[in-house]
Amino acid sequence: MTYELYYWPGIQGRGEFIRLALEEAGVPYLDVAKDAGGESAAVRKLQALLEDAKTPHPAFAVPLLKAGDLLISQTANILMFLGAHHGLAPADEAGRLWTHQLQLTVADWAVEIHDTHHPLGPTEYYQDQKTEARKRAGLFLKHRLPKFMGYFERVLEKNPSGSGFIIGPALTYVDLSLFQMVAGLRYAFPRNQSRIEPKYPKVVALHERVLKRPHIAAYLASGRRIPFNEDGLFRHYPELDG
Amino acid sequence: MTYELYYWPGIQGRGEFIRLALEEAGVPYLDVAKDAGGESAAVRKLQALLEDAKTPHPAFAVPLLKAGDLLISQTANILMFLGAHHGLAPADEAGRLWTHQLQLTVADWAVEIHDTHHPLGPTEYYQDQKTEARKRAGLFLKHRLPKFMGYFERVLEKNPSGSGFIIGPALTYVDLSLFQMVAGLRYAFPRNQSRIEPKYPKVVALHERVLKRPHIAAYLASGRRIPFNEDGLFRHYPELDG
Repeated sequence: MTYELYYWPGIQGRGEFIRLALEEAGVPYLDVAKDAGGESAAVRKLQALLEDAKTPHPAFAVPLLKAGDLLISQTANILMFLGAHHGLAPADEAGRLWTHQLQLTVADWAVEIHDTHHPLGPTEYYQDQKTEARKRAGLFLKHRLPKFMGYFERVLEKNPSGSGFIIGPALTYVDLSLFQMVAGLRYAFPRNQSRIEPKYPKVVALHERVLKRPHIAAYLASGRRIPFNEDGLFRHYPELDG
Repeated sequence: MTYELYYWPGIQGRGEFIRLALEEAGVPYLDVAKDAGGESAAVRKLQALLEDAKTPHPAFAVPLLKAGDLLISQTANILMFLGAHHGLAPADEAGRLWTHQLQLTVADWAVEIHDTHHPLGPTEYYQDQKTEARKRAGLFLKHRLPKFMGYFERVLEKNPSGSGFIIGPALTYVDLSLFQMVAGLRYAFPRNQSRIEPKYPKVVALHERVLKRPHIAAYLASGRRIPFNEDGLFRHYPELDG
């Protein structure tokens, strides 16, 4: 069985959290966003699946992972599935719940990052909510970002194994997602990030640690990683960068 | 073992999704928000747990469920745990993932409802973001609410068992959460809700179905359910109601 990942073409977005897990696990997957027929073919395939009247389990949104007969959506849910099947999460119940709890906190953080450029919601363009975005981004950088960064720094400190990973002795899908958060924040808010990162050395070291994983390094060098841009989750608008 | 639920006193908030599951399951639990020592004692207990330097698994936020040695946070994660242990979710992997996927979509919906009164984020009072809240609430009621309501109506239609519940033949924790969404929306946006509900008869019927569950009916009649109010997730500000 080859997994099929359905996500919007041209952006990393939430699909990238899934791609990083698939790449680290080294499992083959078809990335519909990079369909040989181009972006419009990719969008048609994705919409056909989202609007498929025959599926008993319609998804509200992508990313969507097709795994044989299973159609799984919601980023954290897909990661929980991949974690269980590919050694990217502890196997016991307590470990699975703790891993998923951290991933859901990453998901909340990602929503707040999206809201820095879309405080009025996803239905209007950034250009039509720039004033509100400046206010929200300012509050995010001042209050919320330090709270999230500080939280994950604290969790890394408390990992009794001292592995430098967030849970126990081995890498989990949460480490991959935290790598992506740091990479995305550096793209979106370079000025602010360079100022605050020295306060969170363990989070920064985790980013470096993931960067050196052979499969991740190969993926980043492959040209298959879509560059960050102003259509994705992490957007660089200099006017929002503190 | 008696579960202990940690949540802010005085509001339903996200804690109410957990309370509904515990009530339906008929399991005993200690609700720290209703501590006999009053609200300040409840807040002290909650903060002591959140800030406990000894716990290896600190939570970012409440609700938090203490289940023996386990400390579980993130609403959807707690519900997944309760679902597995108290017959509130299918037992097979495909069913568990589908149930959780729907719950995470409810969680996304709840964030957007919170953002109608807090478009600039959780750090400022509503009174300091009223102008932005009117814009966001207007867009939410026009575009996003119909999308969420329509989605769950469609999922209810597609349930092959025709049970009137969202998944298969029996109630799951998602049904309880959808009940809460309808109840909350009716509180927050009564004018808009009375106008749109006829378009979503299955969602409305699900709310009625849950309302009649003996344990839920007993809970609602007990006086233990905290009334909706303007400190919670669902807030009635007439100026935001369409």
